[in-house]
Amino acid sequence: MTQTGHGSGPQVLRLMNCAAVLGAIRAAGTARVTELVRATGLSRPTVTAAVSTLMADGWVEETEAPEIDAPRMGRPARVLRFRADARHVLGIDVGPHKVYCAVADLSGTVVAHARHDVTAARTHAELLDQVETTMRQALAAVPVALPDIAAVGIGTPGIVDDQRGAVVQAPSVPGWSSLELGSLIRQRLDCPVRVENDVNLAVMAERWNGSGSDAENLILVQWGARIGAAVLVDGQLHRGAHGAAGEIGFLELEEEPQGTQADGLGPLESAVGTASILRRAHSLGDESPDSAAVLVAAAAGDPRALQAVDEACARLARGLASFVSAIDPALVVIGGSITLAGDVILAGLRRHLSRRALVEPRLELSRLGDDAVALGAVRLALADAERRLLDVYTTAAAEHPLP
Amino acid sequence: MTQTGHGSGPQVLRLMNCAAVLGAIRAAGTARVTELVRATGLSRPTVTAAVSTLMADGWVEETEAPEIDAPRMGRPARVLRFRADARHVLGIDVGPHKVYCAVADLSGTVVAHARHDVTAARTHAELLDQVETTMRQALAAVPVALPDIAAVGIGTPGIVDDQRGAVVQAPSVPGWSSLELGSLIRQRLDCPVRVENDVNLAVMAERWNGSGSDAENLILVQWGARIGAAVLVDGQLHRGAHGAAGEIGFLELEEEPQGTQADGLGPLESAVGTASILRRAHSLGDESPDSAAVLVAAAAGDPRALQAVDEACARLARGLASFVSAIDPALVVIGGSITLAGDVILAGLRRHLSRRALVEPRLELSRLGDDAVALGAVRLALADAERRLLDVYTTAAAEHPLP
Repeated sequence: MTQTGHGSGPQVLRLMNCAAVLGAIRAAGTARVTELVRATGLSRPTVTAAVSTLMADGWVEETEAPEIDAPRMGRPARVLRFRADARHVLGIDVGPHKVYCAVADLSGTVVAHARHDVTAARTHAELLDQVETTMRQALAAVPVALPDIAAVGIGTPGIVDDQRGAVVQAPSVPGWSSLELGSLIRQRLDCPVRVENDVNLAVMAERWNGSGSDAENLILVQWGARIGAAVLVDGQLHRGAHGAAGEIGFLELEEEPQGTQADGLGPLESAVGTASILRRAHSLGDESPDSAAVLVAAAAGDPRALQAVDEACARLARGLASFVSAIDPALVVIGGSITLAGDVILAGLRRHLSRRALVEPRLELSRLGDDAVALGAVRLALADAERRLLDVYTTAAAEHPLP
Repeated sequence: MTQTGHGSGPQVLRLMNCAAVLGAIRAAGTARVTELVRATGLSRPTVTAAVSTLMADGWVEETEAPEIDAPRMGRPARVLRFRADARHVLGIDVGPHKVYCAVADLSGTVVAHARHDVTAARTHAELLDQVETTMRQALAAVPVALPDIAAVGIGTPGIVDDQRGAVVQAPSVPGWSSLELGSLIRQRLDCPVRVENDVNLAVMAERWNGSGSDAENLILVQWGARIGAAVLVDGQLHRGAHGAAGEIGFLELEEEPQGTQADGLGPLESAVGTASILRRAHSLGDESPDSAAVLVAAAAGDPRALQAVDEACARLARGLASFVSAIDPALVVIGGSITLAGDVILAGLRRHLSRRALVEPRLELSRLGDDAVALGAVRLALADAERRLLDVYTTAAAEHPLP
């Protein structure tokens, strides 16, 4: 992609016009010059000149005229289209067990991804190297070069200061607390980097293209080895006063508080996480090799697996009922690896919740898979990329004020 | 107060102009004719005519010119003021133990109030009669006549459908569930009547003129014989999908759900309400005649009263910690009769919460007294009264369209 190298001084209007025409094409999807003249209020020659610049700079291309154009006299009008592949964004899910990186174009379509399993105990320097390796692997698959990345979104467990892009507190990831994650990634990539709590990103992905698209008040429970929740109030992500809203994994169910466990898990997380389900299934005589196998067995109706899963549902319902009482959501979406057990989870939670909650929300399983957090991170990055896109011309214009 | 009896047809512009001038005076507080000409864009003679009508109808009066007007030549310009006492609103708190009615003028100043203690077991017909008696007593103290009431706000325990003005579910008030409270009161008073959950109104009062005026994310816990909570998210009342957000009294702390108790109290309510504190104090050898005496004794440092109160704080902290995890408020305000124990409550809650919550909100006692719910109800009624005020002229105008 060529970088716009315009002249100085009097060029400023040309640059502003490019920004206006680019904005109009982006808003319309596809547009003819006549439509751009109407949308921008600029003259036809001005629009034509701007389009030439935008095509030379790689932002805009000519496309086939849509079918509604019946054959007619003369040369058909050019139809211009924004090039969604002009830049790309990265959505990265950094957890204690995996790094997952999605590359998406400016329309939000994921064009490549890469995944690395990581062991639980790592320093943050090692984990950052893993992030970079995963990122480069995903980019090589397209291929896209690092300078063509317009923005990055990162999801991470724990309490995040989204203004600073820092992880404030992350008991479940060793070495991750008080980490200036945004700055560290920005050192490796020269573009905007935003950091957000992973479950907050998953709920944004649900809202974007998952189960939750119609509910204004929604709780997403991301349930796997760890457990977290995120809250939408009136369709907006509710972060809370300290960015800690929805930290269900650290709920204390018992009279005597248990505190953070030796493995970094919160008390409820420890009581309902997939590791506890595997342990319980084993104690009942089940011989599944891992928690995924137990969940699949429960979905198939195996009685021991069902019992282990149901007991976990009963415990989670205790915590979830208090969240439901506080927020009164229309819908609770259950995501994460627990969804391997399918409707068994919904039935169990429904039964245990109904004994504990004054009003009952709808319960659904997430339709997004393992990449929900990365999809939410893509969404976050796209907002930055969108701003940056128009900045290409308006910033250049601002640097060359009218004489 | 005279009712505006304008002519038909061509009078419509005069009526619209009255509405415009009234709106401008209301917005400014006090205003000179010159200022009203500027604010409305109407001519001086038109504004002067509208002012005469508004004064004849009792909405506007002349007032003293403010001191900044130094003596000068000629007759001083008239300063016009909206008459806050032109109409009144009622804010009514209807609970299982009392009916409290506040009469306020259109500036929100409470000019009279009345209170009736009611016994817990009543049919809703008896309770409605109590409401009417209390209302008439408060109005007689001003005096204000029923037709001069512009709007009514009512607070009631339970889950309220604010659109219908109906109580959907109120386990703590016998006969109160599925009650069309708004319609029933409207039969006795010809004006807008709005019904809202009592703790939701208390949190609006806190936001309006209590402790919570600076916190965007806030939980109010109203703690007395019963216990309820209300939630502000981004400065707005969060009602939830079914109007049930914040129903902390029905939280189930134990593994085996307890359900609604024989006395209509929810499980947590039953475990921390003032009656349970009195029972516990008695079991420790305290001889206070009632729960208020126990709370006052705790404030004075009596060890048995302190122990009973601290045990209740420990139990409430269990429920409150889960609300704090879900919402992550900047501030938790504690209101209700428990505030008789003063800072003992804050210290106890703070100690028990700190062992259970990842992040700790600020804790404060409510500065509003027993009338917090009625003040919130006044606030609700004022919004309706405000709309109705301008309707006096615009509705009359709409009924006489231009020929």
